Amino acid sequence: EILEGVIAFFQKKVLAGKKVLITAGPTYEAIDPVRGITNKSSGKMGFAIARAAIEAGANVQLIAGPCHINTPLEFTGQVQRINVTSAQEMHAAVMKHLDADVFFAVAAVADWSVKNIKDEKIKKADSSSPSLEFVINPDILADVAKAAAKNSKPYCVGFAAETNDLEKHGQEKLVRKNIPMLVANIGPDTFGLDENQLLIIEQSGNKKTPKLNKLALSRELIQLVSTKI
Amino acid sequence: EILEGVIAFFQKKVLAGKKVLITAGPTYEAIDPVRGITNKSSGKMGFAIARAAIEAGANVQLIAGPCHINTPLEFTGQVQRINVTSAQEMHAAVMKHLDADVFFAVAAVADWSVKNIKDEKIKKADSSSPSLEFVINPDILADVAKAAAKNSKPYCVGFAAETNDLEKHGQEKLVRKNIPMLVANIGPDTFGLDENQLLIIEQSGNKKTPKLNKLALSRELIQLVSTKI
Repeated sequence: EILEGVIAFFQKKVLAGKKVLITAGPTYEAIDPVRGITNKSSGKMGFAIARAAIEAGANVQLIAGPCHINTPLEFTGQVQRINVTSAQEMHAAVMKHLDADVFFAVAAVADWSVKNIKDEKIKKADSSSPSLEFVINPDILADVAKAAAKNSKPYCVGFAAETNDLEKHGQEKLVRKNIPMLVANIGPDTFGLDENQLLIIEQSGNKKTPKLNKLALSRELIQLVSTKI
Repeated sequence: EILEGVIAFFQKKVLAGKKVLITAGPTYEAIDPVRGITNKSSGKMGFAIARAAIEAGANVQLIAGPCHINTPLEFTGQVQRINVTSAQEMHAAVMKHLDADVFFAVAAVADWSVKNIKDEKIKKADSSSPSLEFVINPDILADVAKAAAKNSKPYCVGFAAETNDLEKHGQEKLVRKNIPMLVANIGPDTFGLDENQLLIIEQSGNKKTPKLNKLALSRELIQLVSTKI
């Protein structure tokens, strides 16, 4: 903790006094009281960005889906963590913090939730093959971007967890969500890993970061974003 | 580790020289490269039983679904942990250890897996509401019980994660799976909690344990099972 504090102290305070809102981790959409749909996000990238933002002097709201990571630099008093489970809950928590200066939408949010969540565990005997109906979840990033279009903040940074055609899907997402910056993972599956390489997509073009650990990448990203606001 | 070793040393060696096979934790059934269906099992109960069995002198095969728990008493050399993801993988791992004396089927195994696992991430635009088809998974406990009927071992202990009608569903499951003992959780949701109360169901009748932490319960259960083999 002391070492972490010293390291944090020596980072450039490029976000001093700024409010940063971050979603991290997966969401969990209940099917019945025991089962649910989730995804492979470990939360590491979002928590690394939270750490880098705190190091840079920001006050951070960290909205975290179910994941097993300690809140970074908690002793600084610059971070408030809100734990949520479903996409709906994450959306509600995010919408309370639209006064942020920057929003990093890092969480892997479920696109759909299950239509009729069962009160009792679905038994195998009930059906040889259950059928699940889905309803589309609120689009957190798009909703924050709408608010940003009105209030000229927060500056929205989206993350794409595409498995193919990064540049094409990334550019499309930038336009569709109406956001100024989108970050995509390059290379093979990075879920749960500490190292990563990012493609940073803006309307003006794309650039690749070097392959670094997630904290080093997050510091780069925070420096870059601090020049935009 | 020293304290844990000393405590373990002073437990009764009621399973000395016995092989105990345990499944623990949830399973994860992929939908696409990033999404999957899981359940709320923390793995704590299965890992507590593994610890109690090792303390009692057993050699333990611990087949664990995705969960964040350290292998208990690893330094004793009495435990081998095999990490698996899907129910199919768990089934395959279990079937290699049918020479066990006791089998504790504690894992919350998915009843179904997704029929056509997608190679690429399903995009929201692909469908306003995706439909998932399922195939039924192999029934690990029933398959071990079949082998046990032939070879008169392992002694099979099932676990029921019912949310209603414990005694009725429990007795039915005992008969359906053809096993001598079934353990059900009493009271409200115990997922992830350390304390628990169990209903132990045998053909001769049911009995309740006191409310205890999962390790204390596991020690009781190990003592009880050791009288059956």
